[in-house]
Amino acid sequence: MNFKERLAAQAARVDKLLEEYLPEESGHQKTIFSAMNYSVRAGGKRLRPILMEETYRLCGGTGTEIEPFMAAIEMIHTSSLVHDDLPAMDADEYRRGKKTTWVVYGEDMGILAGDALMIYAFETATKALHWTAYPERVVRAISILAEKTGIYGMIGGQTVDVELTGKPVPEDKLRFIYALKTGALLEASMMIGAVLSGADDEMVKKAGEVALLVGMAFQIQDDILDVTSTTEELGKPVLSDEKNQKTTYVTLYGLDAAAQKVKELSERAVSLMHEIPGENAFLEELILSLVNRLK
Amino acid sequence: MNFKERLAAQAARVDKLLEEYLPEESGHQKTIFSAMNYSVRAGGKRLRPILMEETYRLCGGTGTEIEPFMAAIEMIHTSSLVHDDLPAMDADEYRRGKKTTWVVYGEDMGILAGDALMIYAFETATKALHWTAYPERVVRAISILAEKTGIYGMIGGQTVDVELTGKPVPEDKLRFIYALKTGALLEASMMIGAVLSGADDEMVKKAGEVALLVGMAFQIQDDILDVTSTTEELGKPVLSDEKNQKTTYVTLYGLDAAAQKVKELSERAVSLMHEIPGENAFLEELILSLVNRLK
Repeated sequence: MNFKERLAAQAARVDKLLEEYLPEESGHQKTIFSAMNYSVRAGGKRLRPILMEETYRLCGGTGTEIEPFMAAIEMIHTSSLVHDDLPAMDADEYRRGKKTTWVVYGEDMGILAGDALMIYAFETATKALHWTAYPERVVRAISILAEKTGIYGMIGGQTVDVELTGKPVPEDKLRFIYALKTGALLEASMMIGAVLSGADDEMVKKAGEVALLVGMAFQIQDDILDVTSTTEELGKPVLSDEKNQKTTYVTLYGLDAAAQKVKELSERAVSLMHEIPGENAFLEELILSLVNRLK
Repeated sequence: MNFKERLAAQAARVDKLLEEYLPEESGHQKTIFSAMNYSVRAGGKRLRPILMEETYRLCGGTGTEIEPFMAAIEMIHTSSLVHDDLPAMDADEYRRGKKTTWVVYGEDMGILAGDALMIYAFETATKALHWTAYPERVVRAISILAEKTGIYGMIGGQTVDVELTGKPVPEDKLRFIYALKTGALLEASMMIGAVLSGADDEMVKKAGEVALLVGMAFQIQDDILDVTSTTEELGKPVLSDEKNQKTTYVTLYGLDAAAQKVKELSERAVSLMHEIPGENAFLEELILSLVNRLK
């Protein structure tokens, strides 16, 4: 199997795993089950669970207690998209070519579906207890999940992003938004993989640092692609940042400096990743594909 | 100290505890910290944390690992109020005489503040790990917190409540809404208290059953008070159910049958609570005060 085939197989495996945890659509509260399932099934590349599992294997993990956390991180990611799309936030009616959750289920159910996924992620994560002899690792992993998702992570980044919409963004705040809004869930993915495998604190820290570098590179590459590629290549509208008068790494420093920064960050990420002992060829390709993600 | 004084002292203690966990209002994401803190500080009787701690003590708990969970359940409760008040939900501009979170911070920050509190509750709960030698109890307690908060608990109840707004509600759905929207967080409070104390499964189950009976009695009493008391006595507008054409236990069965039901449920709750060995005089008064809560 080449890299692309293996990545597709992993994504299919995550889809299957998610199905095992998603609620059955019956009972009085059926609507919320449907809205959750619709949101999760709308797809995506499942990169966070794949990154989590690969880090777990790299650090020597061989069990199945990683699986509930793989499902959980994707639920959290989905919940943030569901709330981001709401009329009071980005007011998006389509995502990945499908109607967004609030358009299909109403604004009230859109709010509740995001809440539901967020909480159900934690409910799902606790199921790891059944498959490990190390309950304290489960608590530490839940702690990372919450910290990187919440006010010191993703939600913190979203707050600043929302506040600065339509305003000029100074560099330190742009960095903050990139690190927290995009970087934090990648950090959580790799750190949880490391924690559940039993890796020591130094390795867990290293995994987090790799993920943060990847997150920054990913986001700057996003800025570049918005300017340099076509809608067909990218799979979403280009020049949207210019249209929305958005401050990006490209508007601040220009294309060349941005490209240089991506190169520098991804090289540092890969080199740091090599300090974690273990079979890492796929993870290296995964990191580089995340950064250079033209189809 | 009589009951009222002790209850007030406990509520003050919970307020102090919450302050220990609430974020400092500084940094790029300061707005979300302020919005969270504003929401939590808007007050309330702090009944859920008090109920949790009393159950913990009743079951023999003597440690401090209960404290992060006491803060967490109040954060979850607050998050649900913040989202309930949003324009797309109940569109409430005032709660307890204060402007609601979205009115003060905007609708987008209202959504994010609810999310933030929900996730921060789990982050806070994991801190119990530092104060216990039983990490697997912490995981079980987090699992209960998530289950009773999410789609099989509070969010599930809210879903049905939102869907049936302005429509006639059949009895089975009314029961479902009461049990999940009001009952589930009380269940979580008492069950988590029992789990963290090291109580066996039977006691944990019993604690949950007591809480569910209390929740049902509490909600039916709410229906009764809306009809029989004055705005001054109740501290909030009366006859609101009639005004909103809401199906309640009183509209379904009449005042007498509703009062009879409250009596029956609270007697069962107290008698079941007595099956948990330990000093329970305060908890009994607390349960009865929850049910008969005219000022």
